[in-house]
Amino acid sequence: MTDVLNERIFSFLGGENGTWSVVSHRTLSGDPIAPVACVEMVQGLIADLPPGAVWSLHGVTTNDRYTHAAEKAELIKRQAPIGRPSSTRSALILLRKTAEWWALPQDERRDVLEEQSHHIAIGLRYLPAIARRLLHCRDMGIAEPFDFIGFLDFAPTEEAAFDDMLRELRATREWAFMDREIDIRLTRS
Amino acid sequence: MTDVLNERIFSFLGGENGTWSVVSHRTLSGDPIAPVACVEMVQGLIADLPPGAVWSLHGVTTNDRYTHAAEKAELIKRQAPIGRPSSTRSALILLRKTAEWWALPQDERRDVLEEQSHHIAIGLRYLPAIARRLLHCRDMGIAEPFDFIGFLDFAPTEEAAFDDMLRELRATREWAFMDREIDIRLTRS
Repeated sequence: MTDVLNERIFSFLGGENGTWSVVSHRTLSGDPIAPVACVEMVQGLIADLPPGAVWSLHGVTTNDRYTHAAEKAELIKRQAPIGRPSSTRSALILLRKTAEWWALPQDERRDVLEEQSHHIAIGLRYLPAIARRLLHCRDMGIAEPFDFIGFLDFAPTEEAAFDDMLRELRATREWAFMDREIDIRLTRS
Repeated sequence: MTDVLNERIFSFLGGENGTWSVVSHRTLSGDPIAPVACVEMVQGLIADLPPGAVWSLHGVTTNDRYTHAAEKAELIKRQAPIGRPSSTRSALILLRKTAEWWALPQDERRDVLEEQSHHIAIGLRYLPAIARRLLHCRDMGIAEPFDFIGFLDFAPTEEAAFDDMLRELRATREWAFMDREIDIRLTRS
């Protein structure tokens, strides 16, 4: 068997070059990461840092972990793909949850995430203006510094709405389980 | 950032040498893998095949995906760890589920797995005689040939019970979503 990369992997390279220029970089909880001028998102696993890159974060798209059938149907109906020409702004949201979160059984995590925190319902209200790619990092071969990488893009006129969405999410019970969060805002170079 | 391996990774090496000698090797669905004389389970990612090894399969232990709080409490109360001195027999169950399974929303997968198939309830009835380590392989950096690796060990006198458990599980609706399954039985060398 030859090692073949998982096709659902994406790498985010922070450094001197990249499609996205950093507008702001804010650590909300936990350790910071090195500030960079640019970010590049590439499909595949970039484990060795190319010249000019300072960090490389990896994650995979995967199956839904909490979404119920009716919610999924709504999401599919309303969501837009990332990469629309008008989406010249984006955000890289790096998240890690506590060991306490991961030790909860599935029903209790779902209860916190949706019944108590309305994570899916809040996100739905901002579709299709905000588009998202969610990467899971916790079960990769390499020990990744975050559990999730959210890459979200939107038109410049939607950034205020995006901030409203994050304010709503960060006020929830789910966010009490966040032990590291970094919010990097980007604009297309 | 230096690449550090995920501490929850285990590798299963099939080849000429290993702690476990193969007693039988059966492909129930999908493509077979090369038959081997022995299997070794090691913590960490063994990506390069050592001399005498024919295949290397990798997975990570991770959070529960379907288990509810009451079920988890029962599991914790009843389960035994793998590696008991009396557990001189074991099984490596390699599983891959269909794309249809992975596209189902969380609540429908839970419904198939437990409400329709009683996967957790069936497993509970065989505790603590059968001990299990379940590895998830689908979200690794390397494209793994299976979605799950189940390593289960037991005393030789419990092998008939283990077969009963597998017979029950394989008759469920959940197993209709299995598109590859290999059952390798082992005895401590």
